[in-house]
Amino acid sequence: MKVLVLNSGSSSLKYQLFNMDDESVLAKGLVEKIGLDGSLLTHQPAGMDKVKIEAAIPNHNVAIELVIAALLDEKHGVIKDMKEIDAVGHRTVHGGTTFSESCLINDDVIAEMERLVTLAPLHNPPCILGIKACQEKIPGVPMVGVFDTAFHQTMPPASYLYGLPYEYYEKYQLRRYGFHGTSHRFVSIRCREILGNPEHSKIITCHLGNGSSLAAIKDGKVQDTSMGLTPLEGLLMGTRCGDLDPAILPFLMEKEGLDIAGMNTVMNKKSGLLGISGVSSDMRDVEEAAAAGNERAAIALEVFKKTVLRYIGAYAAEMDGVDAIVFTAGIGENGKAVRKAICENLTYLGIEFDEEANDCRGKEIEISKPGSKVRVFIIPTNEELMIARDTKEIISK
Amino acid sequence: MKVLVLNSGSSSLKYQLFNMDDESVLAKGLVEKIGLDGSLLTHQPAGMDKVKIEAAIPNHNVAIELVIAALLDEKHGVIKDMKEIDAVGHRTVHGGTTFSESCLINDDVIAEMERLVTLAPLHNPPCILGIKACQEKIPGVPMVGVFDTAFHQTMPPASYLYGLPYEYYEKYQLRRYGFHGTSHRFVSIRCREILGNPEHSKIITCHLGNGSSLAAIKDGKVQDTSMGLTPLEGLLMGTRCGDLDPAILPFLMEKEGLDIAGMNTVMNKKSGLLGISGVSSDMRDVEEAAAAGNERAAIALEVFKKTVLRYIGAYAAEMDGVDAIVFTAGIGENGKAVRKAICENLTYLGIEFDEEANDCRGKEIEISKPGSKVRVFIIPTNEELMIARDTKEIISK
Repeated sequence: MKVLVLNSGSSSLKYQLFNMDDESVLAKGLVEKIGLDGSLLTHQPAGMDKVKIEAAIPNHNVAIELVIAALLDEKHGVIKDMKEIDAVGHRTVHGGTTFSESCLINDDVIAEMERLVTLAPLHNPPCILGIKACQEKIPGVPMVGVFDTAFHQTMPPASYLYGLPYEYYEKYQLRRYGFHGTSHRFVSIRCREILGNPEHSKIITCHLGNGSSLAAIKDGKVQDTSMGLTPLEGLLMGTRCGDLDPAILPFLMEKEGLDIAGMNTVMNKKSGLLGISGVSSDMRDVEEAAAAGNERAAIALEVFKKTVLRYIGAYAAEMDGVDAIVFTAGIGENGKAVRKAICENLTYLGIEFDEEANDCRGKEIEISKPGSKVRVFIIPTNEELMIARDTKEIISK
Repeated sequence: MKVLVLNSGSSSLKYQLFNMDDESVLAKGLVEKIGLDGSLLTHQPAGMDKVKIEAAIPNHNVAIELVIAALLDEKHGVIKDMKEIDAVGHRTVHGGTTFSESCLINDDVIAEMERLVTLAPLHNPPCILGIKACQEKIPGVPMVGVFDTAFHQTMPPASYLYGLPYEYYEKYQLRRYGFHGTSHRFVSIRCREILGNPEHSKIITCHLGNGSSLAAIKDGKVQDTSMGLTPLEGLLMGTRCGDLDPAILPFLMEKEGLDIAGMNTVMNKKSGLLGISGVSSDMRDVEEAAAAGNERAAIALEVFKKTVLRYIGAYAAEMDGVDAIVFTAGIGENGKAVRKAICENLTYLGIEFDEEANDCRGKEIEISKPGSKVRVFIIPTNEELMIARDTKEIISK
């Protein structure tokens, strides 16, 4: 069975074609600058060089056409006929309270996703464009929607309700949703496998990348997560501020003469590692600058580590303990120094950190010592594979 | 030595007169509705009935005059001459980064407090009014300022910096300050005494009242606290929302057509226990409603307990462990059910909760069992006494 996985952004489209018989990737690629000057497709068949195809790509329909052409191409294609593609799995960001798991996409699902645009005005519209482009360009192929929010739908009300008047929850579904759910699910499933799939388990998954979030997962069900109504809440991120005293917004809007849009830009694009360090939104650059003596870069690192520590501690308290902690995503998989600083501050949980094992990047490994009361793992995430697995499972029902 | 302690609000003035030879209270009272209709002084000499005095009280100067008259009164007074008052201790809310401890008030201090009004527009102006009224009505008596923020000034940058562009910190001193510092200091000093004043200690103090905050205190120095630039951040409170996804503000302002003032009103006056439960801002009412089957009241309680758990866990992680947890203030001293629910969810820290000892209100007691790895105490707070002690110490130098 072959499954095409699509991740549609407002001006981009990422894809991976999986052979689900062995979960291998046949080809993957990226369409960039859709609707803009300089639009471009980068296509990479497995084991071959990247191919760059420049073309006018005014919309997602044309983007899908180009992806299909690349997959079928005589030279760099990987299939002979579109009929080989059994299903398409879409990364569909915000599923609100409607979608607590992945589902077969039909007109009702699309209508519901359109209704949810109010909660995810930036993220859901491009997903819908990607789905509609597939309906037009590869009609009849079953499609599955995999929502970033779905895995977090098991949170109890005490975790997802904010301290605001209850009527806003009723009127606008204003609550914590959480994101990165597909990643938290992928690595927590793998972590439970490593633990021997025990009936009871308390796992904290740390998805640390350009966007970062933590999740508290008890017996396979999310109890709490650090992102909220939007992906702005929680940890310090590349350019996002994470947690703030809410009173800071009125304060800054007044002092700086910012309107709502201006405030959103500050919080989403100019804050985080970039905002504190003044150097970069990329952890590697910030670490380099700090090592070279840049004081603000050093503080940005400290703030980042502290926010991760706060949430690990909070979730250990919420679950009354923790059996395993998982690091994943860009910083989680590659950030040795970050992992070390965090784990070495958690001896009270009974973590015995294995510095030697930690000296690696991007591979699955246990970084706590044998006998450590709480086990700590690096588990590389793979959201695309998770989407492909869900897609296979749902169309096989 | 006699010390008069004053706590000036915008339309109120609380006072206590201490005999510092034995730290006894000679008299205390409250002036209400200053500048409003129905203004009133309630005066209570120690061991005697309350006296209510209705009068036109247009401003803080008149309020101080009435307090002096009550203290000197032949029937319900407690001193013969104002010269008996050796000093006045003022609760001075926001000390910014200038005041890391209590200090003798002089013109420079008043000027700096006036500069800090930008950070505490609601709280600092009445403090200044109270100070100026004393300068006029009891000239020559030394005055000491005790700041709510001072005890938290030991926080490291990683605790007090937000993930915003660094320039806002430089331009506006936009950072975490924390409040209730006098209370956190009072109970943490007492807790260290009980522990035998060890050189090293990790204490989490939970000031849970109508306003609530937690502090992480290592070796007597605050490492982190839950209130921030303002007293809005952190735990769920009576009518304050506590932590929010910052993106909720733009979302709600747009949906509800709220301006900055309207948003501030929602977050400060209509949220918290009141906002979720729809019943009351008072924990006792909410507990009663929940017991009677009100579902929203029950959820409000769960949210409150979860926010406390999150911060206890976070601070245990930040300090890499905790030796003692202290409950204080209205809910902390009287909320049996709240203490029980929180402590029973912290067995992973090695807390052995003593349910029998917990069955009490408002007295100093250990509520963990002998041998509990982490000790848990109720320690009633006394901010007024802390202010009086600081005042005595500073004028005795």
